[in-house]
Amino acid sequence: MTLKLGELAQAIGARLEGDENLEISKLNEIQVATSDEISFISNPKYLKFAESTGAAALIVPEDLEINFQNLLRTSNPKQAMLKALQLLNHEERLLHPGVHATAVVHPSVLIPNSVEIGSGVFIDENVKLGENILIEANTVIGSGCVLGDGIRLYPNVVLYEDSILGQNCIIQSGSVIGSDGFGFAVEAGKIEKIPQTGNVILGDEVEIGANCAIDRGSIGPTTIGDGTKLDNLVHIAHNVRIGKNCFLTAQIGIAGSTDLGDRVQMGGQSGIIGHVEIGDDVSIASRGGVTHNIPDGTMVSGFPARPHRDELKIEAILKKLPELYKTVKMLEKQVNKD
Amino acid sequence: MTLKLGELAQAIGARLEGDENLEISKLNEIQVATSDEISFISNPKYLKFAESTGAAALIVPEDLEINFQNLLRTSNPKQAMLKALQLLNHEERLLHPGVHATAVVHPSVLIPNSVEIGSGVFIDENVKLGENILIEANTVIGSGCVLGDGIRLYPNVVLYEDSILGQNCIIQSGSVIGSDGFGFAVEAGKIEKIPQTGNVILGDEVEIGANCAIDRGSIGPTTIGDGTKLDNLVHIAHNVRIGKNCFLTAQIGIAGSTDLGDRVQMGGQSGIIGHVEIGDDVSIASRGGVTHNIPDGTMVSGFPARPHRDELKIEAILKKLPELYKTVKMLEKQVNKD
Amino acid sequence: MTLKLGELAQAIGARLEGDENLEISKLNEIQVATSDEISFISNPKYLKFAESTGAAALIVPEDLEINFQNLLRTSNPKQAMLKALQLLNHEERLLHPGVHATAVVHPSVLIPNSVEIGSGVFIDENVKLGENILIEANTVIGSGCVLGDGIRLYPNVVLYEDSILGQNCIIQSGSVIGSDGFGFAVEAGKIEKIPQTGNVILGDEVEIGANCAIDRGSIGPTTIGDGTKLDNLVHIAHNVRIGKNCFLTAQIGIAGSTDLGDRVQMGGQSGIIGHVEIGDDVSIASRGGVTHNIPDGTMVSGFPARPHRDELKIEAILKKLPELYKTVKMLEKQVNKD
Repeated sequence: MTLKLGELAQAIGARLEGDENLEISKLNEIQVATSDEISFISNPKYLKFAESTGAAALIVPEDLEINFQNLLRTSNPKQAMLKALQLLNHEERLLHPGVHATAVVHPSVLIPNSVEIGSGVFIDENVKLGENILIEANTVIGSGCVLGDGIRLYPNVVLYEDSILGQNCIIQSGSVIGSDGFGFAVEAGKIEKIPQTGNVILGDEVEIGANCAIDRGSIGPTTIGDGTKLDNLVHIAHNVRIGKNCFLTAQIGIAGSTDLGDRVQMGGQSGIIGHVEIGDDVSIASRGGVTHNIPDGTMVSGFPARPHRDELKIEAILKKLPELYKTVKMLEKQVNKD
Repeated sequence: MTLKLGELAQAIGARLEGDENLEISKLNEIQVATSDEISFISNPKYLKFAESTGAAALIVPEDLEINFQNLLRTSNPKQAMLKALQLLNHEERLLHPGVHATAVVHPSVLIPNSVEIGSGVFIDENVKLGENILIEANTVIGSGCVLGDGIRLYPNVVLYEDSILGQNCIIQSGSVIGSDGFGFAVEAGKIEKIPQTGNVILGDEVEIGANCAIDRGSIGPTTIGDGTKLDNLVHIAHNVRIGKNCFLTAQIGIAGSTDLGDRVQMGGQSGIIGHVEIGDDVSIASRGGVTHNIPDGTMVSGFPARPHRDELKIEAILKKLPELYKTVKMLEKQVNKD
Repeated sequence: MTLKLGELAQAIGARLEGDENLEISKLNEIQVATSDEISFISNPKYLKFAESTGAAALIVPEDLEINFQNLLRTSNPKQAMLKALQLLNHEERLLHPGVHATAVVHPSVLIPNSVEIGSGVFIDENVKLGENILIEANTVIGSGCVLGDGIRLYPNVVLYEDSILGQNCIIQSGSVIGSDGFGFAVEAGKIEKIPQTGNVILGDEVEIGANCAIDRGSIGPTTIGDGTKLDNLVHIAHNVRIGKNCFLTAQIGIAGSTDLGDRVQMGGQSGIIGHVEIGDDVSIASRGGVTHNIPDGTMVSGFPARPHRDELKIEAILKKLPELYKTVKMLEKQVNKD
């Protein structure tokens, strides 16, 4: 989409200093932007590129000192960038309703006219499909799954039987929803598989990144609440319950039967053991490894995870540990000499 | 399946206190169970739900003090639950032998009458298939693979060429067996790929979780012994040898040419470097990072991993590190003043 | 391929002590090698197998003391083994050009005569294909992708739209290239998805392991330079830039907008936070967690990562922490008594 710079300024809530008639077609990185593109300075370290950029205009904070021909000044550059991205760069993937000739859909499945089903897709019996769903190539949907309106499943996704997905869920490629949980009983040296008879239930607006694995419950469901987002390569074990609007960053793992409240944030490569309760608004730093219940609103870090302030104090002294050791050895000598 | 409560008690080895004629159709979670379902109290923290549950009966430990209309008392509640799950909830997936019209099987492959091959499956030349195998949609099997009786490959699994799988193996969706190991030689700044010419051999009753990656050997095989179970997102590098009846929890990684004995247990997100030997009955705690050989029967934790008792001692003092630092600084002042 | 031992010695740059007329067909592990195979001793701990091996000859270091009938002595056993592997064991997968009957290729795509496209593959519109490409079963290629000559995509790979791959790239099964980055804006409790409008660009000779996830850029590309190799289950977030000839071992994660120089090496399960700069020739140890910029040529370890030498010093004293604590408590008593 192309907009005049003046129109764009208005649309993104910025104040224009410069030529309102320039034609703008895209938002781009400052290093590579060209004369029909705008860019932005979100971090002072990018100021150095302002001299050499080919961009027609820059989104900048209200009070940034900068000498540039066309500026889009705003008190919220991040929000302005998001709006510009949505207006200029983002092309909504239009649905092409219909079932590809190579897709295999069980005759028991009713396919709404608004749904697009790609090449090589397999949909098993008694699956229920909402409106405006996009199921991309080679994705597999097990029997009894229920999909809400507006869902997008990227290529090579697998939903095991009886998975339930709310409206507007997005699942990136390679993710597996509903695999068997890791449950075995050992009796007298013999290993028996514990049947995994539950399912997975995703709320509305849930997004799952690429190559995640979400296990079905053993008895009852594994649940992920409305608005919660998972990054790539995340592992969610059986019977975990995750609240609403949580953000779980890449490569985190949550062991079985653990409960998370709403708005929990977990940094990359963090983890939680099984059977614990994490309150609302908890924040777990990257690499944090949680081994016990965490109350509402707490920020934790480290392994085993403790309140972040305590962890920082320990970390600060860890750095001085060699020095501390020397001091103690010296004191020991002095005291014993006395 | 539906059973009378009296029959069920007998079948799961529990002593019934209550009405033997109730019809029971399922085992369910205590919070949601209804009048034709039973539930259980495996942990005192669930006692509070006994008042409000709709369950017809509860599996409880022999000596639990509880006031409830129908109780299934047993000295081994976990085993009783497992049996109830198997009897009531678990429906064995019945094989529907035959090859789906959209599957592609090389003409050199003999397909036993008992085998089911799903939609979009691809099986390359000279693959050998046992009896009663289930290969689900869009799974790919490379040339020369050998599959034992009773195997189940879930959708979107990949077996690279020459993989050998023992009887009754289960591979969850998205897992890759036999990918090239990470082997490169750097000579005078030039990177050369070391051919990965081995394969992967899985014993009988091996289960692999979702989205794992098991590399083929560089020379000779990567092997996983009978009865060993892997959780999701596990990485096994080339030429690793894993013994029998091991449990490897989610997101663990084992680097190249490392040997594991039998009955090794690894907690979530743990890891082992290459070329080391791990004895029988070793237990590696969650997040443990092993950097050297570990003798039989040892429990280790931490990174670098050490005997668990030593790690606990260090951890206990780490918590007091800020206090220790203050004490030392104070002592220093006092001693130097003297 | 079969070679006489004399010819083989010459081809791999080794000096033969023994019978030049033996027929050799393979390089194998010393424990299992048979009379038409050679093996090697790369590590003294394998010397014990020399007595019992069935191998016809052994590759050994120039100066190794050993009593064996046929020896291939060399100053660079690793290089000799690599050459023997390439000559004897490695069978180049020959291309069988053509499009499988079950593959679906958009009519806008020109397919060179040298390209092989497997069963169930889906290629969307305006994809550009170089020569001698192998695309294996059930792989999916989004619209607008550009693939250089000599690329091999193993089964079940997904390339999202507009991905660009240089010559001779190899992508192992299950990997996802170009998935949406993890970008969300929260305004007044409402979560909005930030459009991910960039793409992924891989240089020449890039290899990606199994079940990796490489996100597309939000604005502009995520890039991986010529010759860089990724192991399995690696996560690369949006707008990361990785230089040339880097080695990123299994299960590492790199957060958004981080830059890596050339020849960076990262050990297993390590990670880097977003928006930092890693210089050329940096080495990050296994489990290292990098939280700030790292200058050229530095080796770091630990979490938060610090210079490896400093980390080793801290680690050495950590082991003595219980002893240190006792000493301090004793000193405290003595000093306060005085």
